[in-house]
Amino acid sequence: MKFSPLVDDLIQSLRCLPGVGPKSAQRMAFQLLERERKAGQKLASALASAMSDVGHCTACRTFTEETHCPICASSRRGHSDLICVVETPADVLAIEAGGHFSGRYFVLLGHLSPLDGVGPDELGLSLLAQHLAGGEVSELILATNPTVEGDATAHYIADMAKKHNIKVSRIAHGVPVGGELEYVDSTTLALSFNGRLPI
Amino acid sequence: MKFSPLVDDLIQSLRCLPGVGPKSAQRMAFQLLERERKAGQKLASALASAMSDVGHCTACRTFTEETHCPICASSRRGHSDLICVVETPADVLAIEAGGHFSGRYFVLLGHLSPLDGVGPDELGLSLLAQHLAGGEVSELILATNPTVEGDATAHYIADMAKKHNIKVSRIAHGVPVGGELEYVDSTTLALSFNGRLPI
Ligand SMILES: [Zn+2]
Ligand SMILES: [Zn+2]
Repeated sequence: MKFSPLVDDLIQSLRCLPGVGPKSAQRMAFQLLERERKAGQKLASALASAMSDVGHCTACRTFTEETHCPICASSRRGHSDLICVVETPADVLAIEAGGHFSGRYFVLLGHLSPLDGVGPDELGLSLLAQHLAGGEVSELILATNPTVEGDATAHYIADMAKKHNIKVSRIAHGVPVGGELEYVDSTTLALSFNGRLPI
Repeated sequence: MKFSPLVDDLIQSLRCLPGVGPKSAQRMAFQLLERERKAGQKLASALASAMSDVGHCTACRTFTEETHCPICASSRRGHSDLICVVETPADVLAIEAGGHFSGRYFVLLGHLSPLDGVGPDELGLSLLAQHLAGGEVSELILATNPTVEGDATAHYIADMAKKHNIKVSRIAHGVPVGGELEYVDSTTLALSFNGRLPI
């Protein structure tokens, strides 16, 4: 016996959110009950709609309830000859926030990870192959994470692009602008030496 | 243009949760969409039910969808002559976790804070007065927080209890068991000196 069933159930259900432990779930439930009932109702219906109606863009695989996401549906970007391959929709947002890329994306929704059963099929690579075979793509920019899995995934996709004679590149990894050398990890530092450019 | 409307709406709605900024809202939305659809649906319906059906216990004011919360409804504790006054339902849970108190509670859902428009009415003190006048209460234990507002609230309620000739006490504040003196803040330390007991 903790609280009454509906309150216990709310606290328990909030635990499905990443980073929410028992204490924060309680705090969230009480705050909603005390003074955010309207917002709580709105969240309930936003959740219900999104969970049941959001699928994947048929062109780039990002989340959307439409056939095409806003970028793939745009006349300006939807048929760009530049495709940037990223692991997650959050990566799209990060790149869009920069505002320098005006091509389209392909979202893997993960990276190759054979031990977890994630292979080329799970990453939608046959859909990417269709784009490559379509003759519309002039360059594939690989922006997977600089991790063992991200690198392996980038190499796999680079091989696919080469088979189609499509130019392929990998974004540079190195010391972040404004970052201080002494606080940068050694792997990043090694990458920044490997990727050095003549000035 | 960020994502499609349902996804944007989900991310925005998650911001009503305490401690959830734009980045964590995104992370939550993507995790739910990627691999927690069932849990997300369950959260949506738990939220909808709780927001619309949970009210307050008519005896102690804690959150419940019933007339009485489980403690007030229990035959063993519901008419206890000991009432512990706390600020929030979370305080009830903390005391219950200790397992040493077997009386009932009165939950203020706040503390006196005239500047925020929180007076005796907002804290349900007329309901508490009814309990005190009912002749069933032998002692009122004040467990409001050791803050300026919590103390003021405790004093106000202590005066009410005295008018009804009911014994009133305040829980002790001091150095936590297992705590190290040097890490305890000076206010707590002062309280622990004021509350010293002969051995
Ligand atoms: Zn798309
Ligand atoms: Zn109650």
